[in-house]
Amino acid sequence: MTEELNLEQLTAGVRAMIPIFDAMQLTVVDAGRGRAAASIPPAPNVNHFGAIYAGSLFTVGEVLGGILGFNTFDLDGFIPIVKSLEIKFLNPATSTVTARTSLSAAEIARIESEARELGRSEFVLTAELTDEAGVVVAATEGVYQVRKFV
Amino acid sequence: MTEELNLEQLTAGVRAMIPIFDAMQLTVVDAGRGRAAASIPPAPNVNHFGAIYAGSLFTVGEVLGGILGFNTFDLDGFIPIVKSLEIKFLNPATSTVTARTSLSAAEIARIESEARELGRSEFVLTAELTDEAGVVVAATEGVYQVRKFV
Repeated sequence: MTEELNLEQLTAGVRAMIPIFDAMQLTVVDAGRGRAAASIPPAPNVNHFGAIYAGSLFTVGEVLGGILGFNTFDLDGFIPIVKSLEIKFLNPATSTVTARTSLSAAEIARIESEARELGRSEFVLTAELTDEAGVVVAATEGVYQVRKFV
Repeated sequence: MTEELNLEQLTAGVRAMIPIFDAMQLTVVDAGRGRAAASIPPAPNVNHFGAIYAGSLFTVGEVLGGILGFNTFDLDGFIPIVKSLEIKFLNPATSTVTARTSLSAAEIARIESEARELGRSEFVLTAELTDEAGVVVAATEGVYQVRKFV
C-alpha cells in the first residue's frame, strides 16, 4: 500500500466516521507515528466575508488528536477522545488551511506506559494552522485522552 | 413581526452567511439585547458512536458571539469577531444540544462606550451547552471583539 493510498483511505475513513468532515471536505494530508496533518479548502467553509469560519478551523485542528492517536499508539482497545481545546484566531484564512502537530517519542512512550497501567492517559497536542502562503491563521492547544474502550 | 418569525429569519440569515451552519442544521432559538441561544440536532452532527462531534459543539457555542453581538450593541458599522475560544467537553451529547449565553447591562454599556471611543472593545462570553435532558455536555469561554468595520 503506497503512502498516497493510505492517506486517501484515512480521509475516506474519517469522513465516513464523522459526516460533517465530508461537508467541510476535510482531508488527511499526513499521518504516522507521532505526527498528523489535515487540511480544509475555503469553498464550503467560508463566511460571507470569504474567510474560513471559526468552527471549520477548530475542526481541522481538533481532528489531529484522532488521526495521531489512531496512527501512533501501540495500544489495543483504546480510543483517543478530546477533553478540551483552546483555539486562538490570529489572521483571516482565505486559502486552504493545513493543521500540523507532532508528539515526541518520549511522550508517546509515557502515554503508552500510563495507559497500559491505568487504563487511560492524558496528553496535550499543540497545532499551528497555516494558509497556502504559510501565514499562521490560528493556533490550537488540545487536551486529549486515550481511554480503554470496553 | 412576531418573535417566532424573527428567530426564523435570524436562523435563515446566519445559515446564508455561513453555509456550514446549514450542513449542521444550526438554529437560533433565542436572541435579544444581552442574550443569545442556538441549538444543533444530532443527525448531521454525530460521529460513528452516535455522539455529536466536537466541532459541531464548538460551533453552537461560538456562534453565540455573533448572534448576541448583532442583536445587542447600539453601534453603527461595527462587527463582532471571535479572538479565541476554549471549550471543555464534559459529557457525550446524543440529543439536541442548546447553547445559551448572556451579558449584563453594565457590561453592554462598557463595551459600547469603549467601542465608540477606541473603535474596538473586547468582551468575554461564557456558555453552557445542554442536551435535551438538561445535562451539561460542554462549556465554552470565548473572547470576542466588536470592531469598527470600515
